[in-house]
Amino acid sequence: MKNAKDMKPVEWVAGKVRLLDQTALPHRKRILEYADYRELAMAIREMKVRGAPAIGVAAAYGIALGASAIKAAERDVFLRGLEEVINTFTATRPTAVNLFKAAARMREAGRKGASPADIKERLVQEALAIHREEEEANKLIAGYGATLVPQGATVLTHCNAGSLATAGYGTALGVIRAAHEQGKVVGVFADETRPLLQGARLTACELQQWAIPVTLITDSMAGYFMKAGKISCVIVGADRIVANGDVANKIGTYSVAVLATENGVPFYVAAPTSTIDPSLATGDEIPIEERAEEEVTTIGKKRFAPRGIRAANPAFDVTPHYYISAIITEKGILREPYADRIREVVSSG
Amino acid sequence: MKNAKDMKPVEWVAGKVRLLDQTALPHRKRILEYADYRELAMAIREMKVRGAPAIGVAAAYGIALGASAIKAAERDVFLRGLEEVINTFTATRPTAVNLFKAAARMREAGRKGASPADIKERLVQEALAIHREEEEANKLIAGYGATLVPQGATVLTHCNAGSLATAGYGTALGVIRAAHEQGKVVGVFADETRPLLQGARLTACELQQWAIPVTLITDSMAGYFMKAGKISCVIVGADRIVANGDVANKIGTYSVAVLATENGVPFYVAAPTSTIDPSLATGDEIPIEERAEEEVTTIGKKRFAPRGIRAANPAFDVTPHYYISAIITEKGILREPYADRIREVVSSG
Repeated sequence: MKNAKDMKPVEWVAGKVRLLDQTALPHRKRILEYADYRELAMAIREMKVRGAPAIGVAAAYGIALGASAIKAAERDVFLRGLEEVINTFTATRPTAVNLFKAAARMREAGRKGASPADIKERLVQEALAIHREEEEANKLIAGYGATLVPQGATVLTHCNAGSLATAGYGTALGVIRAAHEQGKVVGVFADETRPLLQGARLTACELQQWAIPVTLITDSMAGYFMKAGKISCVIVGADRIVANGDVANKIGTYSVAVLATENGVPFYVAAPTSTIDPSLATGDEIPIEERAEEEVTTIGKKRFAPRGIRAANPAFDVTPHYYISAIITEKGILREPYADRIREVVSSG
Repeated sequence: MKNAKDMKPVEWVAGKVRLLDQTALPHRKRILEYADYRELAMAIREMKVRGAPAIGVAAAYGIALGASAIKAAERDVFLRGLEEVINTFTATRPTAVNLFKAAARMREAGRKGASPADIKERLVQEALAIHREEEEANKLIAGYGATLVPQGATVLTHCNAGSLATAGYGTALGVIRAAHEQGKVVGVFADETRPLLQGARLTACELQQWAIPVTLITDSMAGYFMKAGKISCVIVGADRIVANGDVANKIGTYSVAVLATENGVPFYVAAPTSTIDPSLATGDEIPIEERAEEEVTTIGKKRFAPRGIRAANPAFDVTPHYYISAIITEKGILREPYADRIREVVSSG
């Protein structure tokens, strides 16, 4: 698996955090550097970095960054300051659980430190470990997932679960890349993914870079091409997978899953176990982020709807487990009964 | 039923055809006047006027317009010129059958004329009759359809089937208007309808004008709100209804129908019988217009996809009859078995 040409969404460089501004893609490759953790938290909120695993990595680095600026010499005072930094990041976006799990790991790592200097060093090391583990998980997911892709496959994907979303090889797109390297994938249909067009702007861009043939479609066309028999399987990422196998992912994923099931097209979710939240019993309990109406009423700052029109903008939806053919993790491929398999995976540490 | 405030998509004024340019809405209300039928045919192709019944009316007026400029004094030569005019209109857009049925009526009306002057007059009268019949059908559809809408309903619609699409009171939006006048409708969810955003630009605009509360959503959100129990019923228009009850309509309609069925939400099609094409047995035979890739890769002239990316752009899809709860026509409400009911409606003339 090659990943020399990947765009890196987030990096820790000389005590600062660098982001590739995903709101400027595909036309501009703008690198942003953060020395202030509050500004990085704002960048997460504004989706300059997005994708559940990448958000987790960015928050981990952000917590290390915030800690590095805490002046307190006394350990308890320092840890209270750290808590404030952590809370700033957990308040940015509610749905992707990777953020909360990264924050919990960082808190725990910090508490193991004997002194502020020791805590600071441990936090940097923990953030680097989180990033490294995501990269390793991506490669394993790609390998497992590729076994599910048939020869001559045309794969449909929704939103973006590539290098940009995962700070690694990619999850859904990682599976597609690995299967393409094996000569199995002949083409990809990419849903544009309104309102923020991650499919048109990011997925199309990554696939082009990897020389994988891609056809861009509007979200409303996915069902048409499934019914026409043009789609071999659907592969998407995830923002939170709960105990019963229900999956929160970008708005529109639920519709794609229902249409896939109706048309007998396998529907796969590719995600690291860092996306699993065993504390919630079903998808109904997952908090769904509601974003600004302007993301719907305007596109690229141009307003299309008449003035005064209200819009709704739930950023995610929940796909019940019974529409999901398999969940591809770095610990293997999970199938029904998901509740049992998820329990096993989580307890295996 | 009030329609004083309706925007008129197409009018015959002093021997010329006026269109309200629907590509400029909602921000600009630009009236275009055509004295050359070829320019009007181009305007239909460019969707300055769109919506199956409105296209039929515009083509009928266009044929009368084209005939008015034919110089031939000899009846047979005149009719050959008329055929060229008719063919120019039938070549504009392939999916909405109203265009072909209007063309056939105009051809027949022309052939009844004894002389070029008589033919010209008959063509104008026939076009006016087609327009008037559509207006009358709209009112009847609205009345029948409103009986299906429950008290306190929130209705979802896709694309635009209002006054702008139908040259009358509206079909799907006509039903919503009538039910709203009866105090039954508390709100409407309007799918934005990519790629050309007829929902955001036209449906939102019409509902606002009629003071019906509207919430704009992306096409990918329709399933989310159905699953959340927020939608009482779905009402859409149609571009062609075939013998078995399968319905071609704007791309994305099929997905909405599948999601409605999956969630137990009634899915209604509102259309005049001029949209019925009994010559085709099933929806598989309906020609689906493929439009320019740029409609997908760019939005409002701004390109979002990377350079070099291919896109697909089927403008319509087919909803199989078994997803449709009822078809609301000016001759009453049709239900399964659609094949029988459609045969009755068509044979009743």
